[in-house]
Amino acid sequence: MNNPDLTPDQIIQRLNWRYATKKFNPSQKINNDDWYALEQSLVLAPSSFGQQPWKFFVIRNSALRQQLQERAWNQSQVVDASHLVVLAIKQDVNASDVDRYINRVVEVRQTPKDQLSGLEDAIKGFLQDPPFPLQPDDWSTRQVYIALGFLLYSAALLGIDACPMEGFIPAKFDEVLGLTDQGYAAKVICALGYRSEDDKLAKMNKVRYETEEVLQYID
Amino acid sequence: MNNPDLTPDQIIQRLNWRYATKKFNPSQKINNDDWYALEQSLVLAPSSFGQQPWKFFVIRNSALRQQLQERAWNQSQVVDASHLVVLAIKQDVNASDVDRYINRVVEVRQTPKDQLSGLEDAIKGFLQDPPFPLQPDDWSTRQVYIALGFLLYSAALLGIDACPMEGFIPAKFDEVLGLTDQGYAAKVICALGYRSEDDKLAKMNKVRYETEEVLQYID
Repeated sequence: MNNPDLTPDQIIQRLNWRYATKKFNPSQKINNDDWYALEQSLVLAPSSFGQQPWKFFVIRNSALRQQLQERAWNQSQVVDASHLVVLAIKQDVNASDVDRYINRVVEVRQTPKDQLSGLEDAIKGFLQDPPFPLQPDDWSTRQVYIALGFLLYSAALLGIDACPMEGFIPAKFDEVLGLTDQGYAAKVICALGYRSEDDKLAKMNKVRYETEEVLQYID
Repeated sequence: MNNPDLTPDQIIQRLNWRYATKKFNPSQKINNDDWYALEQSLVLAPSSFGQQPWKFFVIRNSALRQQLQERAWNQSQVVDASHLVVLAIKQDVNASDVDRYINRVVEVRQTPKDQLSGLEDAIKGFLQDPPFPLQPDDWSTRQVYIALGFLLYSAALLGIDACPMEGFIPAKFDEVLGLTDQGYAAKVICALGYRSEDDKLAKMNKVRYETEEVLQYID
């Protein structure tokens, strides 16, 4: 990693290139190699204590997407994009999830379990007595938004368009997709694919506040 | 963007390279060009309706960092890293923030204000009657975690190490940094710099659940 492939300028260029795509080209699909990188961006996204309190549901079926569209302010992105991802939290994260994680650490790192009691106590302690008022589901939701960020960023690097959306009825999505029975709850969705030639928003300037208004040095 | 500079494999490589750095090399600083890209990754990060309900505080001063360390479980990253970023929400986002945003759209896109009433109503409507139970501060916090994701991702691309942290007392940070008076509240912090040669975690396998456990196709 001493010679990264992207310069600081190229990174800024990529981030300026992306935008929340309003109109997708329904006939252009994401290829398998690109999709694999997008999928792995979700899997490899970081989360607090590495807990991964989430699951990502990918919907390609168009009949199902039409049902979801009705529950998402009728937005065309839900049906027109190549892929639709529903980012969900694992509901009511608790000590048993930490146990599962610790077992996974033993498996992946071959660390003897008795060497992990400090880590186990730290995570359980955080969840039981967090340094700020926190509902477990809110905490899991925060983590899901990191994963959303990773997904959007990878898409931008690959030249794939995306539209993250909060304009949908999570309870209805949970119902249609059967998430509640699995113990998950939809929190945010993301359409991915390629912009339509006539998406007017593609040509508009990105609206951001001046850097001095959102970033401040305290020294 | 038809020829992105990174292949899907390179993206996955970068994401595997990064890890939550526990021990930084205190003598290695991020250079200005790299820092500028990190800063702009925060500024350019997407947020719901483009609202940017946030501010990012950068602390380089070591005396101040020592004060913060005591309020962050005494973690060495807070003082040893090159830069410390405190990601904060704007508290109590409301209709006046939407007005400010609409004025910014007029400025950046030269769109006549009367053409933006639909957008204005949509954002105000969402905040007043969201499709899911939502406190404004929780909503703003979710957005901040997207920005955190963008910051971590850019760092990985630049070969810069990072450690996102929730193990700190936000109320104390707000007090020490004077954020409350400005109308902001710290939500998550991130140390950035370069790993120490003897950070054992750098060599350990990344712990993730199997893809099938966290990603599911519903077709």
